[in-house]
Amino acid sequence: MRILVTGGVRSGKSRHAESLLPADRAVTYVAPGPAVEDESDPEWTARIEAHRSRRPASWTTLETHDLPRALAVPAPVIVDCLGTWLTAVLDENALWDSPGSETVSVIGRLLDDVTEALSARDDVVWVTNEVGLGVVPSHRSGRLFRDLLGSVNQQIAAACDEVHLVVAGRVLVL
Amino acid sequence: MRILVTGGVRSGKSRHAESLLPADRAVTYVAPGPAVEDESDPEWTARIEAHRSRRPASWTTLETHDLPRALAVPAPVIVDCLGTWLTAVLDENALWDSPGSETVSVIGRLLDDVTEALSARDDVVWVTNEVGLGVVPSHRSGRLFRDLLGSVNQQIAAACDEVHLVVAGRVLVL
Amino acid sequence: MRILVTGGVRSGKSRHAESLLPADRAVTYVAPGPAVEDESDPEWTARIEAHRSRRPASWTTLETHDLPRALAVPAPVIVDCLGTWLTAVLDENALWDSPGSETVSVIGRLLDDVTEALSARDDVVWVTNEVGLGVVPSHRSGRLFRDLLGSVNQQIAAACDEVHLVVAGRVLVL
Repeated sequence: MRILVTGGVRSGKSRHAESLLPADRAVTYVAPGPAVEDESDPEWTARIEAHRSRRPASWTTLETHDLPRALAVPAPVIVDCLGTWLTAVLDENALWDSPGSETVSVIGRLLDDVTEALSARDDVVWVTNEVGLGVVPSHRSGRLFRDLLGSVNQQIAAACDEVHLVVAGRVLVL
Repeated sequence: MRILVTGGVRSGKSRHAESLLPADRAVTYVAPGPAVEDESDPEWTARIEAHRSRRPASWTTLETHDLPRALAVPAPVIVDCLGTWLTAVLDENALWDSPGSETVSVIGRLLDDVTEALSARDDVVWVTNEVGLGVVPSHRSGRLFRDLLGSVNQQIAAACDEVHLVVAGRVLVL
Repeated sequence: MRILVTGGVRSGKSRHAESLLPADRAVTYVAPGPAVEDESDPEWTARIEAHRSRRPASWTTLETHDLPRALAVPAPVIVDCLGTWLTAVLDENALWDSPGSETVSVIGRLLDDVTEALSARDDVVWVTNEVGLGVVPSHRSGRLFRDLLGSVNQQIAAACDEVHLVVAGRVLVL
C-alpha cells in the first residue's frame, strides 16, 4: 500500500502515519530535513526531539532528501515530510530566487524520479502539509512554497493508493 | 446541477471543476479577473496561461465580473473563481478601505442578484478558494478578504446542489 | 454527546454548533474572550454583536475562560471558541514571550483540568478554528498560536464523541 497522509500543523498527521507501519519490525524512517540541529532554533529542535522519542527501536532513521535512494531500501518506508523535502531541495539548488519556470522544471524532474521509484515498490507512507488554505502570503518565498507544495502533493497523491486527511487527530480517507 | 468546488491553492480544484462539464460541447468559461495580463506579475500571467491552454476548443471565455449577466447565457457555465470575482468587485467599488458595514452591504446586494440568477438556471459549476484556515492575517485587507470570501462561499454553497472539497487532487463531496 | 465543531473563519461553524443545542431550553453559552467590547476594534465588536443577536432568549451567556467552572453548570454547554480561550489564557499568564516549554506545560495542565471536567459530563459542544493550513506565519506569536491551538484541538477532540468539520456551511462528521 502507498499512502499519503496530509493535514495541517499539529493535526496528528505524523502520529497517524506512524501507526500505519509495524512498530515491531524494521522500518526506514526518512527525514528529508537538515540532520544537524539548529541551536538558534529551539522550536525546531524540540519538535524534532518529540518526533524522535516516539519512534520504535526497530526503526532506522535515514536523513536524506535523495528520495529515489530512500525508496530503494527493502523495508517499509515512511517519509516525514514532503514540506521538509521541498525546503531542502529549494535550499540545495538555490532556487528560492530563481525564475519560477526554472524552479518548476527542476522540481518536476525530481518528482518524476520519485514517482518512478514509487511505482516500483510497495509499503510507503508519505507525510505532507496542507499549506494552501490561508490568504495569499505576503512574501514571494511563501507564495512559491505553497504553490510548489500543492503541486508536489497532487503528484505524489496521484501515485498513491490512498490519501488520508487528518483534522484534530481524526482521519478521513479521501 | 449546481456545484461549488472549493479547496486550497494548487489542490487540483480547477481541473476537477472543468472535468464536471462536457469537453466536446459549448461551455461558457467565466473569468471574473482582469482581462489584461499584468506584465509586472509573471507568476499570475503564467498561471492564467496554464489554465487557458487546458480548456477545450468548444468552450468560450467570457471575461466579466457581472455574474448575473454571465449566468444568462444558455450554455453550461463555469465560473473560475469566486476569489477573483471578489477581488474585482472590491477593486471596482474601491471598497478595500471602506467601513466594514458598507462593504458587507455592497457585497451582500451583489450576492443576492447572483443567487437569484443562479436559482433560475441549471448547469453551473463554481470554483472558489478556502482561505480561512490559517492564522489571522497581519493586514486588514487580508482579514477583510478572508471574512468576505468565507461569507460568499457559504451563500453560494447554500444555493448549490453539491459542494466538492478538493485536497491533493482527491475529491470529497460534502 | 460531546462534539467538537471545527472549520475555517466564516465557514458557518458557530451556526452549526448552535443548531446542535435546543433553542427552546436553558443552555449556557460560554464566551471565553474578553467581556468588554474594544472600541478600537470595530471588526471584533461587530462580529460579537452578530453572534449575540442570533442566540435564543432561553440561553444564558457566561463570559469566562475558567472552563472547568463553566463545565460545572447543569445545563447543556456550548463553548465558542477554543481559539478565544487560548488567546485569553496566553494573555492572562503573559505567555506570549515565555520559553516554549513553559508555555506548553501551563497549557497542558489547564487542558488536563478541562478534559477531566469534560469526561464527567454530557451535552457539551465546542467550537474551534483550524489555523494550521497556511504557510508558516512570519511572527513567533503566530507560530506559537497555531502550534498550541493544533494541540488543544487534538486533545479536546480525543475527549469528544464526534468531530464535525464545517466547510462553506456544509458539515462533515469525521
